[in-house]
Formats: sequence, structure tokens, C-alpha cells
Amino acid sequence: MGKDISKAVIKRLPRYYRYLGVLEEAGVERISSGELSRQMQVTASQIRQDLNNFGGFGQQGYGYNVHHLRQEIAMILGLDHTNNMIVVGAGHLGQALANYANFERNSFHVIGIFDVNPDIIGRKVRGVEIMSVDELPDFLHHHDVEIAALTLPKENAREMAEVLVKNGIHAIWNFAHTDLNLIVPDDVAVQNVHLSESLMRLSYSLKSRQEKYGGAVQDKEA
Amino acid sequence: MGKDISKAVIKRLPRYYRYLGVLEEAGVERISSGELSRQMQVTASQIRQDLNNFGGFGQQGYGYNVHHLRQEIAMILGLDHTNNMIVVGAGHLGQALANYANFERNSFHVIGIFDVNPDIIGRKVRGVEIMSVDELPDFLHHHDVEIAALTLPKENAREMAEVLVKNGIHAIWNFAHTDLNLIVPDDVAVQNVHLSESLMRLSYSLKSRQEKYGGAVQDKEA
Repeated sequence: MGKDISKAVIKRLPRYYRYLGVLEEAGVERISSGELSRQMQVTASQIRQDLNNFGGFGQQGYGYNVHHLRQEIAMILGLDHTNNMIVVGAGHLGQALANYANFERNSFHVIGIFDVNPDIIGRKVRGVEIMSVDELPDFLHHHDVEIAALTLPKENAREMAEVLVKNGIHAIWNFAHTDLNLIVPDDVAVQNVHLSESLMRLSYSLKSRQEKYGGAVQDKEA
Repeated sequence: MGKDISKAVIKRLPRYYRYLGVLEEAGVERISSGELSRQMQVTASQIRQDLNNFGGFGQQGYGYNVHHLRQEIAMILGLDHTNNMIVVGAGHLGQALANYANFERNSFHVIGIFDVNPDIIGRKVRGVEIMSVDELPDFLHHHDVEIAALTLPKENAREMAEVLVKNGIHAIWNFAHTDLNLIVPDDVAVQNVHLSESLMRLSYSLKSRQEKYGGAVQDKEA
């Protein structure tokens, strides 16, 4: 089934998943496409179109069953089982990722953290000890690891990506300023998170708003 | 000029900027659309189309002047001047953002870091002292701050966004798991960075590759 869903819909699924999670936590059992549309600020027809892709759980006059819909999306996204993850690079960003309790709720479990810096090797992050990258290949051969988060500097990221792939990793969550998807084989999934680029888009967006709204800081004090 | 450029092109500009930066650092003075196409793995015609948006610096038989093109893009993105930034939330993620030397190279300068946790208030990150959020409004009135990065938990992010906007912030770089763009006024720019959603997309991408390539981990050892 998953193969028939368009890339654009897949891209939107995590957001549906998040909103449905908030609803479920709030005890909401069902929701209409109209109400979901209001909360998510997308059109109700897009919601119906998107969610029809996997079985049309919405029923006229009833709406969507929040729990079932969320479970269905979880299955499509591969969140219905635990994905073991390692973090390579235990700087602030790596530790932030390893610390995210939210990931665990969403079925991502950090079982190893690696770094080159002897000063931090041996320290623990959420009960997981920071190990030397030298131990990485051995670790990968003895554990079932699906995903590697990579927070190394650009200079080391490509080499490390090769080590990871060589040792069986098929998914890299890349935070280095380089497009790793261009160098790994086709059967390795990569998501590049380029924080600088996001910040540049914000800068552009600020600049164009200043042009539109006239630069002057408006007085917003109540 | 900026207003005539489509959203899709703007979205791609930071990537051009990054690649041109690598070329410039390597001493490359000019590059053809064909060569840039090979490196970035987009078609040469898309590159020409994108870059023609701002003045057609490419010349037949010469290619693009790397330095000039990069400067032009910097201007469009608002990187031709220093953008002062504060970081609200000095956990690992906040400290990672404050530590990014790369941002400084790209004209973003962190001048303040704020948190509620008394244990870390007073500590320094890259020479900038972590202050109490209570001092935030006063700080904003006495400093010229363009951008606020927000790394608070979801529960506190909305309230803090309101405080920021009320005190003159017009750009929020949001890492909380909530869509702040839905609650701020139109003249405030927001970029939401939802790390969990990126990780879910990776999980989906891994799963669909496993289906396509048949799940078995291939032996990649040399």
C-alpha cells in the first residue's frame, strides 16, 4: 500500500501524526475533516484527499477515528515498531538528539552514542555511555541498529557515512553541512537537516516582510 | 527584485549559497552551469532558470562568477549584513545553536541566551552569558535583535512567542513541537524546524527501501 502514496502526501504525514497525537492526548476520539482543517490550517478537501490514500477512515457524519487513523499513519511511517538508533558525534547537538524523550515516544530508541573526544568518552547521556568511534563497527555487528544520526563536522561526515554504510546502516539522519544522499548507495535512506539553510530562509522571510510591512518595528505592547 | 522570485527558487537559494561557498573556499573563480549541475545533482537547465532570476550572471562560454553570484544570493537572503540573534532555551539544542560558528560566517550573531533554569543562568556559551528569561523584555528593548531561536518545550513555546513578538521580535526560528506560524501576526516570520518529523520521514524512507531492496542487509564489507 505504502508505494502508492505520493511523496507530497508522505511529507505531510508526520504533521498529521503530530496533530492526531495532541488530540489523542486530549482525549478526543473522533474529529471531522472540517475541524482538523481548522486546527491544522489546511483545507478540509486536502485532508480528505490525503487521508483517503490509506483506506478512507473518514465516515460521513462521524469523521475520523483519531486513534485508528494515528495507528494507521504510524504503520505507514514505520513507527509501529522500535527503531534502534545511534548518535555519532556527542557534541551539544548529538546530546540534544540523544536526550529527546519525544523520539522514544515515537518509537526511536537511542542505544549508542559515539565520539572521538577522549574527554567525553565514558560520560553518560540518558543512561547511555558515550563510546569511542573506534568501537563503532564492532557495536554495529553486535546490535540491531536501523538509524544513525550524524552530527560530525562536514570534514568527517563523509568518511563516517562510508563506515556506517559498510557496517550495515541503511538510514542516516545527517546534520553535517554536506549532502550525504549524493554519496551513499541507493539502498541507504538519508535525511539531510541543514540548519543553516533553514536560518537563511528565515532571514529571507524576515527581509521580505520588512519590505512589505515597512521595516518599522510596530508597537505591539498591550 | 526579491519580490519577483518564486518561493520554490528561494527555497533552493541557501543550497546554491552553500555550494558556491565551498567552491569559493577552494579558490574556484568561475563555474559553468553544467559543472555546478554535476556537483549539486540538479539539471543544468534548472540552475540556469533559477539563477537567471537575478540578473543572468552566467555568460555563454564563461559560466558564473562564483564570488559575485554568491554575493548576489547573500544580498537576496539578507546575509549581506549582520543579523543579531538570541537563543531562548539553553538546553543542549539551544547551546548547540549558540555554538554554531557556521552561523556567524553566514552573518548570524548570537548576542543573548536565555533560560529559566537557575542552575545554568550565569554560565557562558562562546563568551555569551546565559541570562534569566525575566531579563528578556529589557534586553530586547536595549539591543537590536532580529531573530529569536526558540528551543523551549512545546508547553512554554507559545507563551514565549507572544512575549517575543510583544517586545519587537519579527523572526522566530522555532524548534518546539508546535506550529508557531499559526499563532503569530502576519508581519512575524517563522521557520518551524520539526526534528521529529524529519526523523519520521527517514523512517518511512528506510521502510520503503527495505521493501524495494528486500530487507536483507547487504554485505558491503570490502
